Amino acid sequence: MTNRDLKIIGKLTPRIDGLQRVTGQALYTEDIYLPGMLFARVLRSPLPHARIRDIDTSAAEALPGVLGILHFRNTDTMWSSGDRAGRRPLFSDRVRFVGEGVAAVAAVNREIAEEALQLIRVDYEELPFVTRAEEALKADAPKLFPEGNVKKGDPEVATAGDIDEGFRQADFIYENDFKTSYHSNAQLERRVSMARWDGDRLTVWASTQGIYSCRADIANDLKIPLNKVQVICQYMGAGFGGKILAFDFDLMAALLAKRTDRPVRLEYTRREDFVAVHGRWSTQQHLRIGVKNDGTITALHAQGASGMGAYLRAPGSGGIMVLQAYSFPNVRTEVTRVQTNTSCAANFRAPSGPHGAYAIDSAMDDIAARLKIDPVEFRLKHVVKDNWARLNTPIVSNGIERCLREGAEAIGWAEKRRLYANQTGPIRRGVGLGTGTWGSGIRGSSAVVKILPDGSVKLFVGVTDVGTGAKTTMSVIAAEALGIPVEAISVVSGDTDLAPYSTGESGSSTTIGTGAAVIEAAKSARAQLLDQAARRLKVARERLDLRDGKIVNTENSGQSWRIAEVTSANLDAITGSVTTPDGTADGIAFVPDTMITASNTLQQPAKGAKARAVFAAHFAEVEVNMETGRVRVIRYVAAHDSGTIINKLTAGSQVKGGVAQGIGMALREEMIWDQRTGVPVNNHYHGAKPLLHQETPDVEIVWVETDDPYGPYGAKALGEIPVVPVVGAIANAIYHATGLRMRETPITPDKILAAWRDNPARTTNI
Amino acid sequence: MTNRDLKIIGKLTPRIDGLQRVTGQALYTEDIYLPGMLFARVLRSPLPHARIRDIDTSAAEALPGVLGILHFRNTDTMWSSGDRAGRRPLFSDRVRFVGEGVAAVAAVNREIAEEALQLIRVDYEELPFVTRAEEALKADAPKLFPEGNVKKGDPEVATAGDIDEGFRQADFIYENDFKTSYHSNAQLERRVSMARWDGDRLTVWASTQGIYSCRADIANDLKIPLNKVQVICQYMGAGFGGKILAFDFDLMAALLAKRTDRPVRLEYTRREDFVAVHGRWSTQQHLRIGVKNDGTITALHAQGASGMGAYLRAPGSGGIMVLQAYSFPNVRTEVTRVQTNTSCAANFRAPSGPHGAYAIDSAMDDIAARLKIDPVEFRLKHVVKDNWARLNTPIVSNGIERCLREGAEAIGWAEKRRLYANQTGPIRRGVGLGTGTWGSGIRGSSAVVKILPDGSVKLFVGVTDVGTGAKTTMSVIAAEALGIPVEAISVVSGDTDLAPYSTGESGSSTTIGTGAAVIEAAKSARAQLLDQAARRLKVARERLDLRDGKIVNTENSGQSWRIAEVTSANLDAITGSVTTPDGTADGIAFVPDTMITASNTLQQPAKGAKARAVFAAHFAEVEVNMETGRVRVIRYVAAHDSGTIINKLTAGSQVKGGVAQGIGMALREEMIWDQRTGVPVNNHYHGAKPLLHQETPDVEIVWVETDDPYGPYGAKALGEIPVVPVVGAIANAIYHATGLRMRETPITPDKILAAWRDNPARTTNI
Repeated sequence: MTNRDLKIIGKLTPRIDGLQRVTGQALYTEDIYLPGMLFARVLRSPLPHARIRDIDTSAAEALPGVLGILHFRNTDTMWSSGDRAGRRPLFSDRVRFVGEGVAAVAAVNREIAEEALQLIRVDYEELPFVTRAEEALKADAPKLFPEGNVKKGDPEVATAGDIDEGFRQADFIYENDFKTSYHSNAQLERRVSMARWDGDRLTVWASTQGIYSCRADIANDLKIPLNKVQVICQYMGAGFGGKILAFDFDLMAALLAKRTDRPVRLEYTRREDFVAVHGRWSTQQHLRIGVKNDGTITALHAQGASGMGAYLRAPGSGGIMVLQAYSFPNVRTEVTRVQTNTSCAANFRAPSGPHGAYAIDSAMDDIAARLKIDPVEFRLKHVVKDNWARLNTPIVSNGIERCLREGAEAIGWAEKRRLYANQTGPIRRGVGLGTGTWGSGIRGSSAVVKILPDGSVKLFVGVTDVGTGAKTTMSVIAAEALGIPVEAISVVSGDTDLAPYSTGESGSSTTIGTGAAVIEAAKSARAQLLDQAARRLKVARERLDLRDGKIVNTENSGQSWRIAEVTSANLDAITGSVTTPDGTADGIAFVPDTMITASNTLQQPAKGAKARAVFAAHFAEVEVNMETGRVRVIRYVAAHDSGTIINKLTAGSQVKGGVAQGIGMALREEMIWDQRTGVPVNNHYHGAKPLLHQETPDVEIVWVETDDPYGPYGAKALGEIPVVPVVGAIANAIYHATGLRMRETPITPDKILAAWRDNPARTTNI
Repeated sequence: MTNRDLKIIGKLTPRIDGLQRVTGQALYTEDIYLPGMLFARVLRSPLPHARIRDIDTSAAEALPGVLGILHFRNTDTMWSSGDRAGRRPLFSDRVRFVGEGVAAVAAVNREIAEEALQLIRVDYEELPFVTRAEEALKADAPKLFPEGNVKKGDPEVATAGDIDEGFRQADFIYENDFKTSYHSNAQLERRVSMARWDGDRLTVWASTQGIYSCRADIANDLKIPLNKVQVICQYMGAGFGGKILAFDFDLMAALLAKRTDRPVRLEYTRREDFVAVHGRWSTQQHLRIGVKNDGTITALHAQGASGMGAYLRAPGSGGIMVLQAYSFPNVRTEVTRVQTNTSCAANFRAPSGPHGAYAIDSAMDDIAARLKIDPVEFRLKHVVKDNWARLNTPIVSNGIERCLREGAEAIGWAEKRRLYANQTGPIRRGVGLGTGTWGSGIRGSSAVVKILPDGSVKLFVGVTDVGTGAKTTMSVIAAEALGIPVEAISVVSGDTDLAPYSTGESGSSTTIGTGAAVIEAAKSARAQLLDQAARRLKVARERLDLRDGKIVNTENSGQSWRIAEVTSANLDAITGSVTTPDGTADGIAFVPDTMITASNTLQQPAKGAKARAVFAAHFAEVEVNMETGRVRVIRYVAAHDSGTIINKLTAGSQVKGGVAQGIGMALREEMIWDQRTGVPVNNHYHGAKPLLHQETPDVEIVWVETDDPYGPYGAKALGEIPVVPVVGAIANAIYHATGLRMRETPITPDKILAAWRDNPARTTNI
C-alpha cells in the first residue's frame, strides 16, 4: 500500500478523549477515591547528608487517626529504583539529599497525616555535603559513597577512528566549554499512587507512563507474582520520562495498605514532586574540534561530566549525545557521572539529547563564523548522509538535509541572516539553527482488535496515553487498517488487566511499536470479517473489501452491506435458548458478544544491519533587549523527518510542546540548591519558571515525510526529538543577534548583560 | 484422560476469594463510590392500577440539590424488559402494580433525593384492579391490557402420544389440584446501578449475573454501539435469576447521568428490591393421571395457570415443568400465563422446576400409597431410562436410578418408612422423596489464559461469580488443564472490557460452558509453553510435561524446571534497551510481559440428537407438631447426578443453598397483596421469611458421578437443580408423618392445622 491510498492517516484527527480532558470528565489517578481509603504523607530529610542515629515515632503513632508508619527500622523492602541491577533500601539510616524520604505515614485524612509527620523525632548526625558536580569531582570533596562520587568505571569512553591523527590533520583546533543546568520534568500532573489489597492481590492506581513496567517493578520489589498485581492508569497528565521508572511512592502506598489493611493514597505536594523524583542531569562539556581551513572537520574530542544527584537511577542515564546528526571521521567521547547531595537526575524527554546538541551546534556555529561559511551550508557539509560512519551502518531513511533546506526556506534564512547583520541599538534580532536526531527502533508490543456484533470495534492496547494522544493515534491506525471510521472504534487501555502488553510510553516508541501491533491485529480481524461475509453473502471473497465502514463488492460499485448485517445474521444463528429435557425453555437467550477477535504481539526486531533514526532542524528567530538582557523568541520553524505522520494534529502538538520545553531549558529553567544548606530554593512552578503558554511562540512545522519501510505506514518516532535542537537554535540566534556566545544554560538576562559588559567591542561579531 | 488421573478436579477447593468476601475487603457494586456522584431514587406508584393524568415536578426541581428528574413526559426511552420482542416505555402514563416506577430523581445526596420524591405531585386516575390469577381469568375481571389478562396464544399446549387412548387404558384416574405461591428471589445483595459517561462512552457498575447480556441490553435500549458500553461487576451478592434480564434501574441511572453530566448511583431499598423486580410465578395446577392397577401410568394431563404479575418479561417465563424425570407414554400439558396487578414474575432458579416437581411428586406419592407400592420402587418404575420417550431422544448419561437408590439408602428409607407408620401423639415424623431433572446444554462461551514470565498465570473469563464460586471453579479447571496449582492462577473477570465473552451465569451453564472454553484455552497455552521449553531446554517435546507447576522430563524422573526458568530465559532474550544512532542507550529496559496467550471461544453445540440432563432425588425427614402445625426438617439427603464434580466444596454449597431455598418455598415464603388495596404487605426479609441459617438442616449430599462425554472433565450442570425436588420431598414427608396431602405452598402451620381439623380420621392413612 502506498501512502497515497491512505484515507485517515496523515489527516488532522482531534483527540478522541479531548472533550473529557478539557471538561474535567476524565478521571485522572488523583480523581479516584476509594472507600475507607487512608491518606499517606512522606517525612523528608531537611539535611543534604546525614546518618540517622535514631527515629522515634511513638508520639506520631499515638495520634488518633494514624494507622501506619514506615521507616528504616520496620521496613526492609529493597527498591529497584529504576535499575534492577542497583537496588537500594526503600528507607535507610543514611540520607543524601534534602527531600529524601525518611518515613511514610498513613492516616485517616491528610491533616492528621501531616500532623503526624511533625511528631516524628529524627536524630540526625550531620555529614559534610557537596551540591555541585565540579566540586564533587575534587579529591577532597565529601564522599556520598565509600567508592567516591563518580560512577564506577567512568569515564565512559566511546571512540571511532583516531583522534590524534585527526587533530594532526587539522589546520586549527576549536575548543570551548558548555554548561547546562539541572531542571525538572515539571509535568502538570503530580505523583499520586493508590494501593489496595484484595487478599494477596494488589491493585495500584498509578500515574505511570508504562503500566506494564510499573507492574513488573512492583511485583519484583514486593516479591509477589506478576499475576497478583494490577496497575491502572486511565488518564495521565504527562511524565516526560519522569514516570517510567520504578518509584518509591508506589511501594510505600502498597506497604502501608498491606499493614493497615486499608486502601492507601499517597500524594505528593508540588514541592515534593520537584525534589523527590528526578530531573534532567546538569552537564559540563569540553569540546575540542579539529578543523581544516576548507571547513573539513577532522576530529572531535568531547569530555563531559553529568551531575546525577544523590543516586543513579536508570542504567543508561547520564549520557551526553554530542555527535547528534553529524558524521565526523575521528571521534572520542568521554562522560563521567558525578554524584552530589542533590535531587536525582534521570530520564527526561530525549535524556541525552538537548545538552549535547546545544554544545555541538554552538561549536558548529562558531566554526562556521570563523570560516565565514553560512551555518546552513556548513551543517549540510557535515550531517550524516546514507551511512552512519561511526557505526558503519546504512540509514533506512534520512531527511536531515531536507529538514535543513526546507526549514531555512520557511524562516527566510538567507534574507534574515543578511538583514540582521551588524545591528546597533538596544533591540537586536537574529536567526539561528539547531539540529538533532534520535533513535526510531521498534519495540515489542501487542494489541487486540474485536469486531462486535453491531459492527462497532474495540481496540485493546496497553498504552496510558501520557498526553501525546496515543489513544487517538492507535484509533487512527486501526481505522486505516480496518477500513472503518475512527468514530466506530473504542479504545480500551491503561490497565494491565484490561489491555495486552504494550511497551511503556517512553523512548519515542508508542506510535511505531504498538502501532505496528495494531496494524497486524486489525488486518487479521478485517480478514476474518471478510471471510465470514463472503460465506454469508455468497460473494467471492476476493471481491469483498471493507471501506469506510461498509463491506463493499468491489466489482459491483452499488453493492454494499453494513458490518452489522453480516455479524447480526451470524448472531441470530448462535443465539438461542436452552432447551430443558421436557421441551420447555428456561427463557434465557444469550448473545455471544464478540464475533471477531484478533490479537498480535509484535516482538522487537533483532538488531539489524540498518540504523533507524529521526531527524530535525529547528530555526529560531529571537529579539534581544541589550539593556535588560531579555530574549524573546519571535518566530520558530521546526522541520522534522519522522517519516509518515499518522495524525498531524497530535504530532504537531508534540513538536510544539518540545519546542516550549526547549525554550524553557534555553532561557529559564534551573533548579538551585543553596550552597550553605543544600536546600533547593525554587522547587515549585513559580521558581522553576517553565514557559507559560502565552510566552510560547507559534511554531511553524515543516513535515519532511521520508518513507520508512519498517514503521507502521512508514511512520518513524517523534516523541522526544522535538526538544533536542531547541537550545542550540536559541543560543545561535542570540549569537547572531548579539555576537555573544552564551555557553551556559539557562541563558538568563543577567548572563547576557554580564557577557555584553565583558565584550570589549560591544558589537556583533558576525 | 480418565477421571482417575485428575489431580485437582473433584477435591474440596476453598473459594479463592473467600477471605475477601468474609472480611469485607471485597468491593461489591454497592461499595463503589465515584467522585461527584449523584444519588438517585425512584418514585413508585401507590396504586395497583391507574392512569396518570398529570405529573408536576416543579417543586421537586426547585429543591436545592436536585439535578435531574425523569418521568413519562420527558423520557421516551423504550425498555426491552428482558424480552427484546416486547419493549415497553421506561416510564408511561399507566401504572399496573403498586411499586411500578413513575419518576426517578437524581440529587446530591440520598436525603435530598428522597425529599424530592415527596414533592412530586402525581394526578392518578384510579382504575379497577385484580391481584389474583384465578380472579384475573374471569370474564368480568378488570383488564390490564386491551387484549385481556392472558398471554396471547395461551394456553401453550405440548402433547406426546394420545392421552384419550391413554386414559381409556387406565384402571383408575388420579385427579388433584396443587397451588404454589409467588415469592421473591430475595438475594442478599440489593440492586444498585452506577452509571458514568466519559464523553459518549458509558460505564455501568451493575449487580448482574451476566455482564455481557447486561451490556447488550443497555446498548440496545439506549441505542448506542456496543463498544461504547462497559459493564463492571467484580463481586456479586447473588441473583438467582433476578439479575440476568435487562433492568429499568440500569437505564434510569444511565439517563440521569447523561442529563446531569455527573455519575449517578441508583440504589434500591430492600422493600423496592422485593416489589420492583420480579419473583417466582405462582401456579395453579390440575393433574389427571391414568393408572393401571399394576402401577403402569397410561396418561398425564396437566393444566396449569401461572400468575405472571403486571408484565411478562423473559419470553419463556411462566412454564411449569411437570413431567420432570418421569417418562409417560401419553402426555398433554397446557399452561396459561395470567396477568394481574402485582409485581412481575420471571426467572428464579430453575424457573419452571420446583412447582411442577411438587405437583407430580405429590401425585406419584398419592398413587403409590393407593397402590401400596413403596414410593421409591414406584419412582424407579417410571423414571426415564436411556431414552427420553416424549422427545424420542437418547440420554447421554442418566443417574436418576442411582440417585433414588443411593439417596434412599443414605437416609435409611426402608427402616424409617416402617418405623414412622401409624404414629399417634402430637409429634410425628415422616420421610418423603422428591425428584427432579434439568437441562445441561453447553452454551457458547470463551476464555483467555496467559502465562506470565514469572510462571504465574492469568485466566480471563467473563463470569461475575454470582456466589456460586465460579471464579474458583474456573481456576480449578484451568489448574487441572495446565498442570499447575490453583494458587498460581489469578482470575480476571466481571468486566466487559477486561474479560472475553462468557455466557451469563444463568441456566446452570457456567461450569460446563465457560469451563469447557477454559480447558481449550489452557490446553493451548500449555502446549505453547512446552513447545518453547523443548526448544530452549533442548529436550524432545514429547518427553516434556507440565505437572504440579513444574516442567518435567517424563523420561528422567529427577529432571524438572520451574516455568520461570524457561520464560525468564525467553524474557532476557527479548528484553533490551533501544540503541540510539550514536550508540548511547536511552536507558529504558522493557519487559514483554505476556509470554503465552491462548484464547478459546466455544460455540454452542448444534442441537444434537442426544439429550443432556442432570438428575436428582431428595429425601427429607420431617417432624410435625400436630398441636402447633409446625414442621421441622430434621434430616435431609440430596442425591445428585451432575456428572463429574469439579469442586466438591462449592458444589456442595450449591446443593445446600438450593435445599434451603426449597424448604423456604415449601414451608414459609409467599408474597401477599392486600386484596382491598393491591398493596404488598410483606415486601421485606422479615415478612418474606426465607429460611434462616440456623433453621436450615444439615444436608447430606450423595454425588452420583456419571460420566458425561461432552462436559469439561465429564461435568454436567448443577446450579438450578438443587431447588427442584425439595418441595415435593417435604410435602411427601409431611404426608408420611401425618397422612395429610398438602396441596398448597407454603405449607404453613395454619394450613396443617386446618387440614388436620378437616381430616375425619385424624390419623395417618399410610
